[in-house]
Amino acid sequence: MLRRINATAVLNALRDADGHTATVSDLVVATGLSRPAVTRALTTLAEAGIAEFAGTTEHQIGRPAQRARFRAELGHVAGIDIGPHKVLVMVADLAGNVLAERQVATPPNATGSHLVALLRATLTEVAAEAEVTPTDLWSVAVGTPGIVDHERGEVVLAPSIPGWSTLPVIAELREWLGCPVGIENDVNLAVVAERWCGEAGANLLFVQWGERIGTGMVIDDKPYRGASSAAGELGFIDLVTDLDDEPKPPADGLGAFERLVGAGEILRLGIQRCDSPLRDRLADTGDIAPLFDAALAGDPAALSVVDTIATRFARGLAVQLLIMDPQRVVVGGGVSRAGDVLFDAVRKRLSRLLLVPIDLRVSALGVGNVALGAVRMALDQVEARLTALL
Amino acid sequence: MLRRINATAVLNALRDADGHTATVSDLVVATGLSRPAVTRALTTLAEAGIAEFAGTTEHQIGRPAQRARFRAELGHVAGIDIGPHKVLVMVADLAGNVLAERQVATPPNATGSHLVALLRATLTEVAAEAEVTPTDLWSVAVGTPGIVDHERGEVVLAPSIPGWSTLPVIAELREWLGCPVGIENDVNLAVVAERWCGEAGANLLFVQWGERIGTGMVIDDKPYRGASSAAGELGFIDLVTDLDDEPKPPADGLGAFERLVGAGEILRLGIQRCDSPLRDRLADTGDIAPLFDAALAGDPAALSVVDTIATRFARGLAVQLLIMDPQRVVVGGGVSRAGDVLFDAVRKRLSRLLLVPIDLRVSALGVGNVALGAVRMALDQVEARLTALL
Repeated sequence: MLRRINATAVLNALRDADGHTATVSDLVVATGLSRPAVTRALTTLAEAGIAEFAGTTEHQIGRPAQRARFRAELGHVAGIDIGPHKVLVMVADLAGNVLAERQVATPPNATGSHLVALLRATLTEVAAEAEVTPTDLWSVAVGTPGIVDHERGEVVLAPSIPGWSTLPVIAELREWLGCPVGIENDVNLAVVAERWCGEAGANLLFVQWGERIGTGMVIDDKPYRGASSAAGELGFIDLVTDLDDEPKPPADGLGAFERLVGAGEILRLGIQRCDSPLRDRLADTGDIAPLFDAALAGDPAALSVVDTIATRFARGLAVQLLIMDPQRVVVGGGVSRAGDVLFDAVRKRLSRLLLVPIDLRVSALGVGNVALGAVRMALDQVEARLTALL
Repeated sequence: MLRRINATAVLNALRDADGHTATVSDLVVATGLSRPAVTRALTTLAEAGIAEFAGTTEHQIGRPAQRARFRAELGHVAGIDIGPHKVLVMVADLAGNVLAERQVATPPNATGSHLVALLRATLTEVAAEAEVTPTDLWSVAVGTPGIVDHERGEVVLAPSIPGWSTLPVIAELREWLGCPVGIENDVNLAVVAERWCGEAGANLLFVQWGERIGTGMVIDDKPYRGASSAAGELGFIDLVTDLDDEPKPPADGLGAFERLVGAGEILRLGIQRCDSPLRDRLADTGDIAPLFDAALAGDPAALSVVDTIATRFARGLAVQLLIMDPQRVVVGGGVSRAGDVLFDAVRKRLSRLLLVPIDLRVSALGVGNVALGAVRMALDQVEARLTALL
């Protein structure tokens, strides 16, 4: 028992070390264990095939120190981001190094069997690039929009992908791969990625801003999901134009706030207000990046779109900030790539709407953040399996 | 040390027992301690003056069992609710039995020294009714609107009472009374009261709905206050009429949502839409209760006010529910007395705005809930003092 605990501590220290290699002395410092205990643990890890001895470090005095190395290549995991318009697959080694990734667009009106076929093909390709076969994966995690039932491992409600919540995709993946396949709300995974590689803090509000808008919260250093795993649905709040009217049911699956400031509305406003050639470029590509480039260059029409969107976004975000009072806000997702031309405008407007100032940052993780969080989730599942080898 | 721990366990069991009395056998069951340990603990408590032996219980067989009693009258605490228009003071014994209470209206534009004088006079009267002098109080807690700095024991921001945040009221109370004087946000205290005597659960959203609107949250059975103790400010969210406009700064200290559905707006709509004599009664008394009575009796104008308010309130509450996803909502404060004629309308509208159903209840605690929470806060402070006697 003690042997296994010590070996796990040394394993974690080795995996987190630079280049996943360390000397016994490094590991003594990192774990607080004695030198003989670290040596015994390394032997245990080497016998299990988890670590190996990989060369020596030359010292100025004394004999060279042996270096141990975590065998990150021992196994692989996959992280998958399934969105309304794209599938993004990453394959990583056991240290979380992403070895290969690929994003493919899902055809409009893709059915369940289309989606499963696309997922299998993409995962096979990405795995091949990482020199593994899918059935050799140790663990897979899938990020999805909507509300996830964690006990049953199913999507309960995902308005943005018609039919998705009734599809047996996860069950089919499990049968095909023969390894654990976890599922989690995409924004919760973006928060996981932010805490793993980004700028999280003990009290964080993370906003995933793309076509859709979702938020994830970290309270007292723990993810907060709500009583029904349905917390953080900022995209569905209704900043209404006629308050005393009955609300309209959403026809497009988008929430009220998503219709006001989502990537789709930004594109629509850009096409409506900008002149050609920018207008044509927006209409042809559906990519909003050129709009923010034009705003940065001083284009008045593009700036007016930025102004409208910043005003609306600040209104909605202020609502959640007034309710949650987090230490920090991190914005990720596709729209986060707009940069300071948009977010300085958001910060300016926010300051007038709040009772206390807020630290708003743009995530450094880019559009792969959900898949990266899925990789982390798959790795967490693997830890139990690694420990069982000892 | 063990003696003190056992005595504290027996003290808590005795205080929570019916009538604060119990036999040794009752206490053995309640604490899990042995009979000799309970007897020794009772002797310790009796020597410290905290418990006494008070008569016997007749058994059918064997000798009569002695009954021990918590001496709740040993000391007293006060709970104070300071609002924009009223001060409510409660004095309770050490078991939390409220012995006397009084509510007084604060004159419009009362200055800080007015407020201190009114507070001293009211506390003196209520204490006299409970047969104690204010300087004999063991502990006092004050509930206040606004944001409280818990480390410094000060009000940082309270837009509803001009100048209040700069007043040395708490310091003056401490100097006068010579006992600990705690301060806490009024809605947080309402949540404390709800958890003490009401219908809380592990994940609760409590809404205090009166002239002002504030909310308190319980997450995983712990009060959640946010990073700056500023969470739950539903009253300040802006459900705007023209979304692309810059927001107007609040002129009256009320938040945007408070102006839409607070007791003041309910009264204004009632006077605007109802006919005499109801209209005159509303205008003369400023009390909204007759409006809800009329709605219950089927008065169409009163019903239209209920309809408008329920629609608006549901819109704002839905925002917080979409973000927090609690298990239960409890509504307290003055407007909660409106009863089902209002809250059935709120429930109906909420169901169309949410992704998951919600359990909404009206608090049973009435308008004294903040002062009651302050009593509980003062008692928590006393526990440390009682234990020190042992």
